[in-house]
Amino acid sequence: MAILEVTIVPIGTGGTSVSAYVAECVKVLKKEKKIKHELTSMGSNLEGDLKDLIRVVMKMHEVPFRKGAKRVSTLVRIDDRRDKKGTLEGKKKAVQRKLGVRS
Amino acid sequence: MAILEVTIVPIGTGGTSVSAYVAECVKVLKKEKKIKHELTSMGSNLEGDLKDLIRVVMKMHEVPFRKGAKRVSTLVRIDDRRDKKGTLEGKKKAVQRKLGVRS
Amino acid sequence: MAILEVTIVPIGTGGTSVSAYVAECVKVLKKEKKIKHELTSMGSNLEGDLKDLIRVVMKMHEVPFRKGAKRVSTLVRIDDRRDKKGTLEGKKKAVQRKLGVRS
Amino acid sequence: MAILEVTIVPIGTGGTSVSAYVAECVKVLKKEKKIKHELTSMGSNLEGDLKDLIRVVMKMHEVPFRKGAKRVSTLVRIDDRRDKKGTLEGKKKAVQRKLGVRS
Repeated sequence: MAILEVTIVPIGTGGTSVSAYVAECVKVLKKEKKIKHELTSMGSNLEGDLKDLIRVVMKMHEVPFRKGAKRVSTLVRIDDRRDKKGTLEGKKKAVQRKLGVRS
Repeated sequence: MAILEVTIVPIGTGGTSVSAYVAECVKVLKKEKKIKHELTSMGSNLEGDLKDLIRVVMKMHEVPFRKGAKRVSTLVRIDDRRDKKGTLEGKKKAVQRKLGVRS
Repeated sequence: MAILEVTIVPIGTGGTSVSAYVAECVKVLKKEKKIKHELTSMGSNLEGDLKDLIRVVMKMHEVPFRKGAKRVSTLVRIDDRRDKKGTLEGKKKAVQRKLGVRS
Repeated sequence: MAILEVTIVPIGTGGTSVSAYVAECVKVLKKEKKIKHELTSMGSNLEGDLKDLIRVVMKMHEVPFRKGAKRVSTLVRIDDRRDKKGTLEGKKKAVQRKLGVRS
């Protein structure tokens, strides 16, 4: 189990909005039953088996090309912890507990 | 107004958990009245005047050093849009609308 | 053909130096005959077929675990251009030409 | 003294090439006498006092806007080590020594 952030940006599309591309990428994510995800303002955070995560990131990376983009910039940040199970929820809760925030 | 993601990681602290460092960084954020923020599983997303954002990121970057870290790795991703006001909420809603998600 | 930057950092190793981990990762790279690479001060830049690049990045990501790390943070930035062949050398030369630097 | 990588990408410019923007950003860098830099295929690596580095990154971030871009995506990765002086050259040499490469 790993956690990963992915941000996919088409370059040179002639428009400043990229939300249509992001939405198509998220559709790819939604089909993956074994992957948890959360949409943030700066990308998508994924949780699952690392191989599954990389496979779906590569699928997402193809999306803007299919929509006509000629250049795509993809950022992937992997947080892979093997001493305990890292989860999207667990990471946030660990911080919130230390801040005294009840969840 | 800009949007920014910041992730601050101490290197060589001898423990795999970094949530105590993150919580202290978030405390710095919480004192900033002009900056909106959301905690994600991979960092903090900030919204505000770019100069304010950079100033607070530099404050946050000092936190692990004060807690004893000798090396800090900080990632900052700025999304600065000047044709329209970009906001944390607006970015997510633009994607969700295209996905047919009501908010 | 794509270009990719990869940075692999072990978390919680108890020492501020990570060069021993980086050197082991670079050894993995050096065995790959179809991948060009350059070591920079902030990571390794790779050039090759995207599938090959991702495969070797995943191999590199395992290196710190084999050396005893319990948590690894890996950053991957893909620059994938399909209107023309993007290369490590070509990208730098395009900038240098515009700066009037002869190579 | 810190080390930093910066990558600045204009979004929605209508062309896949960004080298003209990068070249203008590098010109800003070249005027900075107290900052060392090296151009890589994925960004620019800077070495100097952290405050100086951030100041020049903010100058570079404005360059694409002056050239007409309406949205700019800037990535900054800070490597700040305070137990010893980290340098662009020193980091690469530490890895190369472990690989048995003479410089």
